[in-house]
Amino acid sequence: MKPTHTEERAPSKSALFTDFYELTMAQGYWLQNMNQQVVFDMFFRRQPFNGGFSIFAGIETLIDSLTEFSFSDDDIEYLSQQGIFEKGFLDYLRDFHFSGDLYSFEEGSVIFPQEPLVRIHANLIEAQIIEGLVLNHCNFQSLIATKTARVWLASKQGNIMEFGLRRAQGPDGAMSATRASYIGGAAGTSNTLAGKLYGIPVMGTMAHSWIMSFPSELEAFEAYAKIYPDKTVFLIDTYDTLKSGIKNAIKAGAKLVEQGYNFGVRLDSGDISYLTQEVRKELDNAGFPQAFISVSNELTEEIIETLVQQNAPIASWGVGTHMVTGGDESSFTGVYKLAARHDQKTDEMIPAMKFSDNPAKNTNPGIKNVWRLYDENGMARADILALEGETVESGKEYRYYHPMVDYRQFSFTAASVKPMLTKKIADGKRIKERLPDAEQLQLARKRMRQETATLDPSYKRILNPHIYKVSMTEKLKDLKLSFIKANIK
Amino acid sequence: MKPTHTEERAPSKSALFTDFYELTMAQGYWLQNMNQQVVFDMFFRRQPFNGGFSIFAGIETLIDSLTEFSFSDDDIEYLSQQGIFEKGFLDYLRDFHFSGDLYSFEEGSVIFPQEPLVRIHANLIEAQIIEGLVLNHCNFQSLIATKTARVWLASKQGNIMEFGLRRAQGPDGAMSATRASYIGGAAGTSNTLAGKLYGIPVMGTMAHSWIMSFPSELEAFEAYAKIYPDKTVFLIDTYDTLKSGIKNAIKAGAKLVEQGYNFGVRLDSGDISYLTQEVRKELDNAGFPQAFISVSNELTEEIIETLVQQNAPIASWGVGTHMVTGGDESSFTGVYKLAARHDQKTDEMIPAMKFSDNPAKNTNPGIKNVWRLYDENGMARADILALEGETVESGKEYRYYHPMVDYRQFSFTAASVKPMLTKKIADGKRIKERLPDAEQLQLARKRMRQETATLDPSYKRILNPHIYKVSMTEKLKDLKLSFIKANIK
Repeated sequence: MKPTHTEERAPSKSALFTDFYELTMAQGYWLQNMNQQVVFDMFFRRQPFNGGFSIFAGIETLIDSLTEFSFSDDDIEYLSQQGIFEKGFLDYLRDFHFSGDLYSFEEGSVIFPQEPLVRIHANLIEAQIIEGLVLNHCNFQSLIATKTARVWLASKQGNIMEFGLRRAQGPDGAMSATRASYIGGAAGTSNTLAGKLYGIPVMGTMAHSWIMSFPSELEAFEAYAKIYPDKTVFLIDTYDTLKSGIKNAIKAGAKLVEQGYNFGVRLDSGDISYLTQEVRKELDNAGFPQAFISVSNELTEEIIETLVQQNAPIASWGVGTHMVTGGDESSFTGVYKLAARHDQKTDEMIPAMKFSDNPAKNTNPGIKNVWRLYDENGMARADILALEGETVESGKEYRYYHPMVDYRQFSFTAASVKPMLTKKIADGKRIKERLPDAEQLQLARKRMRQETATLDPSYKRILNPHIYKVSMTEKLKDLKLSFIKANIK
Repeated sequence: MKPTHTEERAPSKSALFTDFYELTMAQGYWLQNMNQQVVFDMFFRRQPFNGGFSIFAGIETLIDSLTEFSFSDDDIEYLSQQGIFEKGFLDYLRDFHFSGDLYSFEEGSVIFPQEPLVRIHANLIEAQIIEGLVLNHCNFQSLIATKTARVWLASKQGNIMEFGLRRAQGPDGAMSATRASYIGGAAGTSNTLAGKLYGIPVMGTMAHSWIMSFPSELEAFEAYAKIYPDKTVFLIDTYDTLKSGIKNAIKAGAKLVEQGYNFGVRLDSGDISYLTQEVRKELDNAGFPQAFISVSNELTEEIIETLVQQNAPIASWGVGTHMVTGGDESSFTGVYKLAARHDQKTDEMIPAMKFSDNPAKNTNPGIKNVWRLYDENGMARADILALEGETVESGKEYRYYHPMVDYRQFSFTAASVKPMLTKKIADGKRIKERLPDAEQLQLARKRMRQETATLDPSYKRILNPHIYKVSMTEKLKDLKLSFIKANIK
């Protein structure tokens, strides 16, 4: 019996997966006895891809890491060798684990700038040491879930196959990307290991090398069809798509149809719009209207949208590089900022706010939740930042305020409301039992479908979408203004 | 004694880390008894970032994976559940390991399009199953080593600190990126775990949150200086860089200087060109010409080059997001194509060539090496693709041919020559003992410095560089032409 490769799925369990300055600062706080309770928000400032929404992902793998990570003895030894950490502090780290609380949006949720997506309640040292971990998991997976949701919507909720393993950013870049793509709407992956670990359907048939390994294209097609009669998609562009590929596919496919099977063809190069129309005609003329066409080759949501608008007869889309790396936008702009701190004099959590020369970068102070307001048709109309303890009730009219420009305000009576952040970790431990990966992902994927369905199409446009309203309650607006007034010198 | 977190460094050891179609094709080859010896080339077609060169990286982590990976019993069980693999084939996979040979460039080498960077000699099934692994490691790490080398050259070989952990593509995306960045010229990293595992210097001092945790900026600075007197870099833009940050840094820094230490300041926002000039004046006027200035905030090679041209007084650069993800170019275009196959009739390896409608995508046939030609000043003048067995000698004049356009040719007598591919794996085993990670990286980093020094500056320009010559020997040109002629119908 060979051992299971358990290490593959393990997110990093070493608390050394942190920026070094977190540790130098942590020793500073420890020496100064400044390890008070704090609240940090993770939020983002701008939609990626010039889009109108994002999809939140990464929180479940983050929770795995947060509840398991620690400094091993050799981690401590490594820090000791740096020559700047005191023995007492190293002893403190030896017993270190995350003992705080975590609140967050659910995976698969639609998210908007300014919203606290993850809220950490912990002592200052813990809250700082986990900063990089929180941002790394949620930034990357949200980027990819968002990109995939755009691809999926552009295809009119079509059949998206994620084929990105070979161009992903490292082995784990590929694993995390496959996970996030599935949340964002991919129907399956080519990454077999991700298929096993996450229960994602695995897909793929033949490469050009298969066809080149046989004396002729027809022999290659026939050999494949014989082995996988119910799973055959002929790759038809190895030599010449129209002169040879589609002709041979029809010959080999005819035998499959005689035996009661169907078949498909895949195009991986050339002018997809023109070629798919021609290939469709050939298939129809040969009497195979049920045979389907699949395409790949550096697809993006923009290309897919154009092809769909041209009614290109495409049944499924293989999307790789751009979807698993973000393409020309390779990072999500999530940040992690102090929102409140414990005050020794009053023994209360008091709000904190960070200022910037750029007012758009001022943070929103205090411990906050996000309420989503729905109209009578169940459509999401605005998200409201409210202070914890405030309740936003359905059927009541409230006035809400723009987070940066307080004279922009509106009144609204929601038909129903939903608080978006819920508690996931209490005192360092998961509140609910961990679901198996496959169940986690099915839930997140379903949530993505449900929540994007409650968004007006204007917010989901690939180009120049409307901007969804994210506003604040009067109480939060007043708190923020009081900070701003106190800061004017 | 707590266990070492060994899993963190382990590259994926499951051979399931492969595209599913490799496995369906593999069963096809197995069933057809088509598992002949083949040679595959990994090469790329286009320099990323509109640059004139790239830096090769990822081969050492690839070799780790290749020499260790296998299908575990539960990997086989997973495949069996897919319902399309025969027991005989699954038994074959149970004993599967890579038993072939690998030739490659060295890590840290300068590389150009068309060159075989990795050459795999194996049976067809092995060569196909490892395709994704080869591409994943070498594509991503080469992308990041290349990006970093550009940043490093733009800074005039300055002091580059890699700060990308929080925006990297997943936890391993961060680890691989830090490794590749160090090869590409970064002086250190903020990623403490990478520091430990790879022996890379770790760097970083304080964040805005440190300053905000104290009643005043000055107190925050003084507290830090007291704990780390020989490592203090004051972050001066939390409140107001010129009105408060630099003033307080000078006050706290003066005490350090009195005690015989130096100090630095860091700027993380605003107009870096203007602010660094002003901060420099303040430091000089206060009598601290030795105090240094460090900057960060969404830096790219283009921004750094501009600042250097303006003589901005900057001693070190913190670069994150763009460097560890590639920024607006998030993938390297490496591909993996058949170059030769064993012929049963002649019992010889015969060249193979793949054609494309786009002639630039035709492959170069045969088992090849790359020879770098140097002039009498030790400067690299051209790279030559030659068939294995051919020797390119120094002091002899040869005529070389453009890989696509055979009427573009030139004659050259090299003062010295170097074959770039060497054998790293024989029969599935490392030829040389594996060096510790830190030594591997030091060698690669040194090679990057040496090889970029032999490149004329015109090839290293950030914008519109000259194109370095990659040509073929007459023998290879003739072989390629014979394929092209045979393919004309």
